[in-house]
Amino acid sequence: MTDTSHRHVPSPGRTGLWLFGARGSVGTTAIAGLAALRAGVADATGCVTELPGLREAPLPAWGDIVVGGHDISDAPLHKNAEHLAEAGVLPGRLLGAVAPQLSDVESELRAGYDPLTHQGAAVLAAQRMSGEIVAFRRRNRLRRVVAVNVASTEAPAADSPEQHDLAALEERLHDERATLPAGVVNTYAALSAGCPYVEFTPSPGIGWASLRQLAERMGLPCAGCDGKTGETLLRSVLAPMFAERALSVLSWSGTNLLGGGDGATLADPAAAASKLESKARGLAELLGPGVAAPLHIDHVADLGQTKIAWDNVHARGFLGTPVTLQLTWTGYDSALAAPLVFDLTRLVAMAHHAGQRGPLGALGCFFKDPLGDAGHRFDHQVRQLHEWVRATAAELEGRDS
Amino acid sequence: MTDTSHRHVPSPGRTGLWLFGARGSVGTTAIAGLAALRAGVADATGCVTELPGLREAPLPAWGDIVVGGHDISDAPLHKNAEHLAEAGVLPGRLLGAVAPQLSDVESELRAGYDPLTHQGAAVLAAQRMSGEIVAFRRRNRLRRVVAVNVASTEAPAADSPEQHDLAALEERLHDERATLPAGVVNTYAALSAGCPYVEFTPSPGIGWASLRQLAERMGLPCAGCDGKTGETLLRSVLAPMFAERALSVLSWSGTNLLGGGDGATLADPAAAASKLESKARGLAELLGPGVAAPLHIDHVADLGQTKIAWDNVHARGFLGTPVTLQLTWTGYDSALAAPLVFDLTRLVAMAHHAGQRGPLGALGCFFKDPLGDAGHRFDHQVRQLHEWVRATAAELEGRDS
Amino acid sequence: MTDTSHRHVPSPGRTGLWLFGARGSVGTTAIAGLAALRAGVADATGCVTELPGLREAPLPAWGDIVVGGHDISDAPLHKNAEHLAEAGVLPGRLLGAVAPQLSDVESELRAGYDPLTHQGAAVLAAQRMSGEIVAFRRRNRLRRVVAVNVASTEAPAADSPEQHDLAALEERLHDERATLPAGVVNTYAALSAGCPYVEFTPSPGIGWASLRQLAERMGLPCAGCDGKTGETLLRSVLAPMFAERALSVLSWSGTNLLGGGDGATLADPAAAASKLESKARGLAELLGPGVAAPLHIDHVADLGQTKIAWDNVHARGFLGTPVTLQLTWTGYDSALAAPLVFDLTRLVAMAHHAGQRGPLGALGCFFKDPLGDAGHRFDHQVRQLHEWVRATAAELEGRDS
Amino acid sequence: MTDTSHRHVPSPGRTGLWLFGARGSVGTTAIAGLAALRAGVADATGCVTELPGLREAPLPAWGDIVVGGHDISDAPLHKNAEHLAEAGVLPGRLLGAVAPQLSDVESELRAGYDPLTHQGAAVLAAQRMSGEIVAFRRRNRLRRVVAVNVASTEAPAADSPEQHDLAALEERLHDERATLPAGVVNTYAALSAGCPYVEFTPSPGIGWASLRQLAERMGLPCAGCDGKTGETLLRSVLAPMFAERALSVLSWSGTNLLGGGDGATLADPAAAASKLESKARGLAELLGPGVAAPLHIDHVADLGQTKIAWDNVHARGFLGTPVTLQLTWTGYDSALAAPLVFDLTRLVAMAHHAGQRGPLGALGCFFKDPLGDAGHRFDHQVRQLHEWVRATAAELEGRDS
Repeated sequence: MTDTSHRHVPSPGRTGLWLFGARGSVGTTAIAGLAALRAGVADATGCVTELPGLREAPLPAWGDIVVGGHDISDAPLHKNAEHLAEAGVLPGRLLGAVAPQLSDVESELRAGYDPLTHQGAAVLAAQRMSGEIVAFRRRNRLRRVVAVNVASTEAPAADSPEQHDLAALEERLHDERATLPAGVVNTYAALSAGCPYVEFTPSPGIGWASLRQLAERMGLPCAGCDGKTGETLLRSVLAPMFAERALSVLSWSGTNLLGGGDGATLADPAAAASKLESKARGLAELLGPGVAAPLHIDHVADLGQTKIAWDNVHARGFLGTPVTLQLTWTGYDSALAAPLVFDLTRLVAMAHHAGQRGPLGALGCFFKDPLGDAGHRFDHQVRQLHEWVRATAAELEGRDS
Repeated sequence: MTDTSHRHVPSPGRTGLWLFGARGSVGTTAIAGLAALRAGVADATGCVTELPGLREAPLPAWGDIVVGGHDISDAPLHKNAEHLAEAGVLPGRLLGAVAPQLSDVESELRAGYDPLTHQGAAVLAAQRMSGEIVAFRRRNRLRRVVAVNVASTEAPAADSPEQHDLAALEERLHDERATLPAGVVNTYAALSAGCPYVEFTPSPGIGWASLRQLAERMGLPCAGCDGKTGETLLRSVLAPMFAERALSVLSWSGTNLLGGGDGATLADPAAAASKLESKARGLAELLGPGVAAPLHIDHVADLGQTKIAWDNVHARGFLGTPVTLQLTWTGYDSALAAPLVFDLTRLVAMAHHAGQRGPLGALGCFFKDPLGDAGHRFDHQVRQLHEWVRATAAELEGRDS
Repeated sequence: MTDTSHRHVPSPGRTGLWLFGARGSVGTTAIAGLAALRAGVADATGCVTELPGLREAPLPAWGDIVVGGHDISDAPLHKNAEHLAEAGVLPGRLLGAVAPQLSDVESELRAGYDPLTHQGAAVLAAQRMSGEIVAFRRRNRLRRVVAVNVASTEAPAADSPEQHDLAALEERLHDERATLPAGVVNTYAALSAGCPYVEFTPSPGIGWASLRQLAERMGLPCAGCDGKTGETLLRSVLAPMFAERALSVLSWSGTNLLGGGDGATLADPAAAASKLESKARGLAELLGPGVAAPLHIDHVADLGQTKIAWDNVHARGFLGTPVTLQLTWTGYDSALAAPLVFDLTRLVAMAHHAGQRGPLGALGCFFKDPLGDAGHRFDHQVRQLHEWVRATAAELEGRDS
Repeated sequence: MTDTSHRHVPSPGRTGLWLFGARGSVGTTAIAGLAALRAGVADATGCVTELPGLREAPLPAWGDIVVGGHDISDAPLHKNAEHLAEAGVLPGRLLGAVAPQLSDVESELRAGYDPLTHQGAAVLAAQRMSGEIVAFRRRNRLRRVVAVNVASTEAPAADSPEQHDLAALEERLHDERATLPAGVVNTYAALSAGCPYVEFTPSPGIGWASLRQLAERMGLPCAGCDGKTGETLLRSVLAPMFAERALSVLSWSGTNLLGGGDGATLADPAAAASKLESKARGLAELLGPGVAAPLHIDHVADLGQTKIAWDNVHARGFLGTPVTLQLTWTGYDSALAAPLVFDLTRLVAMAHHAGQRGPLGALGCFFKDPLGDAGHRFDHQVRQLHEWVRATAAELEGRDS
């Protein structure tokens, strides 16, 4: 990859990005942000795939990506974009430049599956949605469509056979009295439509073994779970630092303050449980068991799109002396997430182009709770990503010549 | 190194640790701490060389290390240890257990070189000190003596020929009217005595090319400069995180509050300049030029041995949205430093045993301003350390069999 | 009060301090700390009644205070003191000096009332305890005994008639099948013994109107509830600042990390609820309704006696611009509480000496959830305290002359 | 003041606000903000004089205040307002609504005195400026004009006779070779024009006794120095809290990060010295001598209009146990200052209306380094303000009836 100027590797070509939860904060930021990138009125700050060593790979160009999606809300995209502009996430001056593209995407959005109001077997919804994605692919002459879940977080489900076994899941999908999480029905619909799948939330979905069986059967790659945008990102670089200095971490306490839609969802303790579980797993892997790690997510509506995380790390060093680290991270959640959605779409498109299937462990650096075997250490994850991109690009190059 | 149970690599054998500044906070903590390790009343928390992947290497055992040193103060070690116990660095219950070993080390301490009071050419002091180190080695039947500078920080010197050329330096050393920094005279004395040299402060010393020429000529390894124990350690893991997420860091502001001896020294702006320079170099390398990075070191006597660092990082993410990170690091400076002094002694002893000479770039993870080519990224430094230890151990093993 | 040198106001004389929860962290710190004050090996830092304007009042001298108490634990005081010394609350060098006094107090401790193990009507326990307090008063020839509750926090009770009506409460006390909170039984016992009562926790007790009826009937002063030692203290000075600057506070989010005994108790959500309720009331009074105020108390055992509070205040200023304040407060809970226990004992003794009865609103500055009409503003509370002390002292002086 | 509905106290009537530094960030925010208040598109959040107990006083209404000023810059107000909108200080949606009023004020701005370029004796500039203010008053039929200095901070001057003696100052003003700080010439011009004077910066000006002599001679009230908008405000509420709890503060370390114009000015150590001096005086008064208080002001351009202050307070409590408080304050400097400029204009207008002269100590709560005898405790200052407003209002009412 050192000299890439003369390569002629074909990019994966026109690629669809299908957003479950397209009208939410992350969805709208991604749609408006991509429009701004294509219009040349924003730069790619925050996009990992624009870094040296990655940007030379055969990835879809910004202009190759076409967006559609499902959402249970029908609030107009342009209204959502205005709200995000008021909240400081989108610069107000961009609204005009992206309006035409927002209008195009608006025409590609369809009604999502809502377990609270759906009548009949869930499979009917899945089939309808699957058909809509296929029609989107054909209508826009796309080589492939990558589905990404950015809908509101759902509660984790109690253990049950349909999580582990595809046949059991399909039985439930056909059961008129059964209720299934939206994330599960969405994943089933996307995979059935032949779409690689990215789980950007901790909701039930590709985290279920049964749905990964379907991905394998369909020959599709997948990635997840739960985008790593703030506190967990910091933990995945700082916890290894303590370990490499042989300092003994005793407790790692955290508080997350969130406004906006995501915060409201997580005010429901059941939904928050999902998030807290995926956060806790990482810390235990990085530091071993026995580290006290109380963690809270609070909905603080007046913070708007801002999220604030505070962590208190208490460790012991030589001769039992105390070491403490306190950190406060403040950012706009949607603006941290949107560029990673682009990265994942481009990388998963490349993987699909290269014929890879199943969980893409090499994308672990993007997730709080990574599928595959990347582990939680950020430095290891980043190295694995670079190596995988290099190898996949080389393979595609070889195939092409 | 995966199966190390049957190796019979001889350790580097009885090793001296010669501390310049032995009676200071770091020196006393190292002396008392090593005594506690040898007496089995403290564990090796904070010692990197006790981590898996490193502890299997042929390193001197705790019991193999004998300590001596120079200091311009003559305050008794046991008094200094009591002060550190009052300040919370040494657990009071250890004082009794380590008293006999403190007394042994006391008998191996000699008067250091003080540029303010020294009469005559500096080389006379260097020769006297060199002879004292050689006598220490013989008296204790040591295979080698590793010299480590933990004395108070000295101001950086204006550029001059003796920094770059050994002949020019030796001329100055013989000039009766010339004053040279203590760190320079100490380094010259140690190298002349055949000792590998570790610079744990930012003072003038092995950072001078002229002295590295002497190390090369003597066939000695060396390492430095300025132990990385707190704020800079955090920066070397966090700055790469921002870079890997393609976030644009605009400013990284810092304040350090230090009590104790080191703080008092750094209350002198000239001495602080030395520290600030070595800190700034790292940030520029990690994030590129153009990042505003105001930095202060304040002496706050009432903090005792505690140091507190506060950093404010201001970055821009996607669509120009702000991301901020604020962190507060609190620890006992001496207790963070002492185990790294042990690590460096052991690793440099192994390098000397293996016949390595010149700057050991692979020890970069221990320093704010590393000699050699390790760069400032902590993850790269750690990997380089592990690879070097593995390779050096393998070489010693091969030589031995 | 400007010239106090020639006053001859008799102090309230020998005063008992009866601690419910005497063997806990606050109890032990108070007992050992008072012993240190009497032995002249500690100074009165942290004692409000030693400030100018208060120390001139006719208060019991340190040497006039004799301690006894109840506890459901029987762990020896000297052991508890050793644990506190290890945790850094008590300087180790004091242990020897206070040992004889600890031993004296040990002989004045009796078994407390434990609702989980008590057999029969609670009134039997109350009568037994009341008798023990009376015996303590006589044995030590005390003018009065001030009872202070520093036992572990109990959960708030659902509303019920016995909280509002003394007759209903006494009926319950005689009901063999009824279980009453320990705080209620302790308060009943103390008041029945003729003791003024101070509630230093948020547990059920003098906060019940029924028990205040008893205090009135017995002609006894009382004070409470819940000692204001950290986060709430800060809030009671900072919230008025925002108000006086006409800044509009939108949210005030808080996290408390506690180790030690109090933390373990508060890990029980029911007990924490009690604490959270008393904290929330103050903020609402200071800033009005509508301020979001999520608040957590986490037990983090490795913090030992340390408590850390983090608050994030989000406000709006002129033109809707944001203002944020984040604060981190770290201290030893028991060492913050103990001197206030002394202050309350002295002040309540003076009130009793002056014949005051019922809730002492002028002591509001000591409490998170003050009885009486002091409000929550710290500046108003402090002024009220000074005025009340001046007036009470003047009255006693007048009576005396 | 309890029933104010039937009062018929005439307000001080049409009042001019003359801003030295009108085109700077604070000046522009004040001008645009007042326009927004008058247009009814902003509310008075942040205005102390709109609080209960103050708003009932006979103060000029928003519609009664007419703005003019001097500035050495000639950057158009509407451009400056646009920059502030981009920086987030002014909501972009307001720009249209305030444009006509900005244009009116633009026509009332005149060239300021610049010591670097002025030719001839400074008194010529003072006379010219004085004349311009008088013309402004007549042209707009104003009862009075309150002058407020919001220009960039100037360095403190070495002690000299003209600071203490009006005759000496006037001699210097007539000396063609003398250079005087802009603040001094501005103050002289304003007082000569019969204007009450408010010093909102720490620059040389009304802080000089010689100029206060002029105010006395002219029968004019004055107030200052240096608006208290952030870190010092917090200190003036928190330091008394430590004192009232008898906690012994050992050190209070601070760092201020400022972007924008004020930050750039303060990057000049001489100008910063002025600010640091006024901050230090307050802390010493509040906590007594001997508290270590290192303090820094850094210019961090990328922070724009944001200022961030970090303070670390280290105290000792009972038995010598440590207590620490760390706080981070973030806000837009200009938006914190502007409403206080309105408050001061209104209150000083009332004082002038009531015939008061000399330093208005009762306005101490607005200043870091208050003139008069208000002291630095915020609670005392606030009480004094309320009492003075009540008394002055009563006097005006009495005079009127």
